[in-house]
Amino acid sequence: MQTLQVDLGERSYPIHIGANLLDRPDLLVPHLVGRQVAIVTNETVAPLYLDRLHRSLEGRQVQPIVLPDGESFKNWETLQSIFDAMLSNRHDRKTTVIALGGGVVGDMAGFAAACYQRGVNFVQVPTTLLSQVDSSVGGKTGINHPLGKNMVGAFYQPSLVLIDTSTLKTLPRRELSAGLAEVIKYGLICDEPFLAWLEDNVEALLALDDASLTYAIERSCAAKAKVVGADERETGIRATLNLGHTFGHAIETHMGYGVWLHGEAVGAGMVMALEMSRLLGAISTAQRDRAIRLIARGGLPVVPPEAMTPDDFLAHMAVDKKVLDGRLRLVLLKTLGEAIVTDEYPKALLEATLTANYHDIAEEAGINRESK
Amino acid sequence: MQTLQVDLGERSYPIHIGANLLDRPDLLVPHLVGRQVAIVTNETVAPLYLDRLHRSLEGRQVQPIVLPDGESFKNWETLQSIFDAMLSNRHDRKTTVIALGGGVVGDMAGFAAACYQRGVNFVQVPTTLLSQVDSSVGGKTGINHPLGKNMVGAFYQPSLVLIDTSTLKTLPRRELSAGLAEVIKYGLICDEPFLAWLEDNVEALLALDDASLTYAIERSCAAKAKVVGADERETGIRATLNLGHTFGHAIETHMGYGVWLHGEAVGAGMVMALEMSRLLGAISTAQRDRAIRLIARGGLPVVPPEAMTPDDFLAHMAVDKKVLDGRLRLVLLKTLGEAIVTDEYPKALLEATLTANYHDIAEEAGINRESK
Repeated sequence: MQTLQVDLGERSYPIHIGANLLDRPDLLVPHLVGRQVAIVTNETVAPLYLDRLHRSLEGRQVQPIVLPDGESFKNWETLQSIFDAMLSNRHDRKTTVIALGGGVVGDMAGFAAACYQRGVNFVQVPTTLLSQVDSSVGGKTGINHPLGKNMVGAFYQPSLVLIDTSTLKTLPRRELSAGLAEVIKYGLICDEPFLAWLEDNVEALLALDDASLTYAIERSCAAKAKVVGADERETGIRATLNLGHTFGHAIETHMGYGVWLHGEAVGAGMVMALEMSRLLGAISTAQRDRAIRLIARGGLPVVPPEAMTPDDFLAHMAVDKKVLDGRLRLVLLKTLGEAIVTDEYPKALLEATLTANYHDIAEEAGINRESK
Repeated sequence: MQTLQVDLGERSYPIHIGANLLDRPDLLVPHLVGRQVAIVTNETVAPLYLDRLHRSLEGRQVQPIVLPDGESFKNWETLQSIFDAMLSNRHDRKTTVIALGGGVVGDMAGFAAACYQRGVNFVQVPTTLLSQVDSSVGGKTGINHPLGKNMVGAFYQPSLVLIDTSTLKTLPRRELSAGLAEVIKYGLICDEPFLAWLEDNVEALLALDDASLTYAIERSCAAKAKVVGADERETGIRATLNLGHTFGHAIETHMGYGVWLHGEAVGAGMVMALEMSRLLGAISTAQRDRAIRLIARGGLPVVPPEAMTPDDFLAHMAVDKKVLDGRLRLVLLKTLGEAIVTDEYPKALLEATLTANYHDIAEEAGINRESK
């Protein structure tokens, strides 16, 4: 087992990473406050892992709250069902909310914990690669709004993140790849040596090799914890974690939540950010193609949806949270392994990025048509 | 004009108190962040003060959001209408939400500011006595849930509180008295000399004497700011601010939100807390009666609703936020001018409090039947 400490002053918390941590009450119980626990999970994860977690909470008043599965349920109605269940069962201010599941469960359970009686104790038990390397670290919680993704939420820190790598054995291949999008992102924005490691180990990760998974998750969490520790509320450097996300959010919103997985949209979005960085002269065509090949090898789409026009992208990006005072800030690469956040680029260059032919770019990078 | 500073480290903020502060852009503008402003108000306050506030924001992109008036609208649907309006008008993360109105507007606007894109700048302009002396100080925001009052919310601090005492000229007499309930509370829980001052000046306050109002508001805000500064998240001493509120919340919930004003329920709730403190032997019958007389002179009810049984009270109090691990903590008086929070009392004593005849108690205190 590996342990990282996220340094946020008096709200610092540990991340434990290892196999079969679900069966470790010694790690979990010290982070509970009172005797009440609400386990928020979904109908897919509950049959797989709810009983095991429940057994690690012996002697507590445990209430499972099982949500429907999917990003399309990350809305007020589902959040309200959590409040209804907790109030009906008289959870008090010393209760603990545990999120058992992926990013959607974590975002909703975390927001519920942030708002229930103005804030109760919160523990994350992420069961997808995406949530393990991304959404369980950093304190972002929230729900979607018909007019935009994650538009209603809170910054709220867990008191513990428990990452059980063995839960990835039951994860669909498509979701494993979606998680790899964020892993590759850390290499692109701040860790070129990790990028090289990923080029050597991407197949081992897809084959669920335990040692490789543990290494990649730990290195990803460490990268994110470092950035979040330096900039908790996303006023500066933290925004570089959104590489590919502005384009990706536009894809998710336009296609309808849940049609493209978040990581898939980020995969195609990172390709767009790479192309824009190349057009700016920050990276070479060879560097762009190297990164695109890794994204494709991770099992991710490298071409945005056929149906989306440049105007579709612009319409959705204009309400993105990264819009400040009307100027669209984007995360771009300064070089492979270093990102910047900027609103200083020719508008024509953004348009060129949105009108580029990504089928041709993928072929230039050496990706054959079937695997796009 | 008087200025108090609420000391919360890097989230400290000033409270300005005085006549006609709505017309002082010099006080307001330094606390805006970007060029966007959303003024959240209601249909009663908007015709009275919206234009004046708007004029103090010249040159900004100002969007008024006018809510229906009343505690019964302090719910998710109304909150959602704020998000809808802000997203439709593309407010970004640098926007400022200004609450112009009473406690309901402040609670909802503050919670909207806390959650909109995970938190934006917030300014309070309270226009009722209750919100001026209570809800605009301390960072509590939230909405009601069918199963309990203020069950969903956040601790979120404003960057400025602007109290314009001249707005009280248009406040209904019943709401002025409701505000006085909280003013009297400060005397009861921590300031016996203020209690004596109030006995000399309660009629002047009801007559809207400016000097008296300014003094009472400042002294009340200072008392609350001191307690909140010492215990922002209500883990200890802050709970004493809830004198009368556990009983009061039960009254509000049982009668239906908005039937009894919050301050009216607190008035009757404080009488119950006084009676329980007397039964405990902490205060004398003479002290209880002195306090009840002041509450009655403030124009507040001193008898709980006829329709409520002891079981009604207990049913509602069991989901109160002050219930910790199944034991009901109550705020009681140690003496006149000093409160304690305790769950150590005989259960029979709580029952005696709930079954007491408050008509008889009021008459013992010398209050004639008409003014109860």
